[in-house]
Amino acid sequence: MNRVKITLSYDGTLFHGWQIQPNDRTVQGEVQKALSELFGTSIQVFGCSRTDAGVHAKNFVCHTDLPRPFPLDKLPFALNAMLPYDVAIKKAEPVSDDFHARFSCTGKTYSYYLHNARIRDPFEKHRAGFWPTPLNAEKMDEYAKEFVGCHDFAAFMATGSVIEDTVRKIVSFDVRRDGDMIIFTVCGNGFLYNMVRIMVGTLIYADVGKLDRSITDIIASKDRTLAGITVPPQGLYLEQPYFDPID
Amino acid sequence: MNRVKITLSYDGTLFHGWQIQPNDRTVQGEVQKALSELFGTSIQVFGCSRTDAGVHAKNFVCHTDLPRPFPLDKLPFALNAMLPYDVAIKKAEPVSDDFHARFSCTGKTYSYYLHNARIRDPFEKHRAGFWPTPLNAEKMDEYAKEFVGCHDFAAFMATGSVIEDTVRKIVSFDVRRDGDMIIFTVCGNGFLYNMVRIMVGTLIYADVGKLDRSITDIIASKDRTLAGITVPPQGLYLEQPYFDPID
Repeated sequence: MNRVKITLSYDGTLFHGWQIQPNDRTVQGEVQKALSELFGTSIQVFGCSRTDAGVHAKNFVCHTDLPRPFPLDKLPFALNAMLPYDVAIKKAEPVSDDFHARFSCTGKTYSYYLHNARIRDPFEKHRAGFWPTPLNAEKMDEYAKEFVGCHDFAAFMATGSVIEDTVRKIVSFDVRRDGDMIIFTVCGNGFLYNMVRIMVGTLIYADVGKLDRSITDIIASKDRTLAGITVPPQGLYLEQPYFDPID
Repeated sequence: MNRVKITLSYDGTLFHGWQIQPNDRTVQGEVQKALSELFGTSIQVFGCSRTDAGVHAKNFVCHTDLPRPFPLDKLPFALNAMLPYDVAIKKAEPVSDDFHARFSCTGKTYSYYLHNARIRDPFEKHRAGFWPTPLNAEKMDEYAKEFVGCHDFAAFMATGSVIEDTVRKIVSFDVRRDGDMIIFTVCGNGFLYNMVRIMVGTLIYADVGKLDRSITDIIASKDRTLAGITVPPQGLYLEQPYFDPID
């Protein structure tokens, strides 16, 4: 086999997420189409995670098995020539046959960009969430540390998700301000559905005094209704998936 | 009269420039529509310049005469509530009746963002030009100084422009690199049609050795065919118009 690890970035604005769907434009669909055209045969790729519509990725990883050898340093250019502008292949590397983008993935770093200013910025509409009243990034950075560690994050999962094991490990969670932008950066071994967006919404609610309990208590409650809002998808970026131990 | 100076920003991607046109979506058209809805009567605005389709503005200035007094600190919020997301009013200030956004304007600063990397970045498609081979920002910064001063810039005007006086004064022109982005910043008392985009294209051509003559000689020639390419509009930003002497 010619198993290849592919790193790519995409602007999620016009995609219905990563995962292929029969009638919607998806990143997986576009990448598979480009690969299939290049090699003249149907090729499937496997991604490191699903992402929601509107969510972006700076470094998404997928793998595939090429039907024949191909110079991997040229593969990004060959594929980019056939891909639409909002997805770009950054790197293609040989990997062993037991590498799997999803199952070999040991963790991920996500960031959330929140534009915090009285007046919205046209350039950030599809690139960041928006909050018009002043937020305190330093306070949110303190609160964020309550998420760090191994916890049952059932309270931070979209209602209606069907999943048995809701324990995840958060390795780090930092919040900093850069001008009018607040950047939330969280690294963990895995994330429940909407978990990052609910954690960010809960930090905002903590800062503006809209929570009845501490974040530690909300985690313990496993009750989604006690946590904050789910912030919108356009501020969320998959920064980096990892394939080595993340600690 | 209640003359008001309005500062706004817009993402030019989906606009056919500033100036109103019968069948195309323009910034002036959207701003006039929002103002007219707010005041219940047809209102015209006057901009500090035209911009081409795809060109952005971080601080565009226009003026208008309001049909009745209105609290100007609230005007941005009232208008933004009615405007589409890709244009935002930042500020509204009272000005004297002889203020005119175009004729009182003493100069402008434009920037051009050029993404210089082997692989394109999906996030920069509508925000920057792209050049895939390595460019030397320091060398271009040196060449850029040849533009500074009062010159006849006929060689740096789109072919077919009808204008009598092609003398303009460039106050400063700097080029710097920030990671994969090269940022050109030019301040002058006025610019001919496509002048900034041709000057940037000429600096690129100077750096890659595609010019037959020095920039000083090309200025003196007044011959458009000796200058470089016109770089695409999506990297161009109106940063700031000025209404005081710019020296």
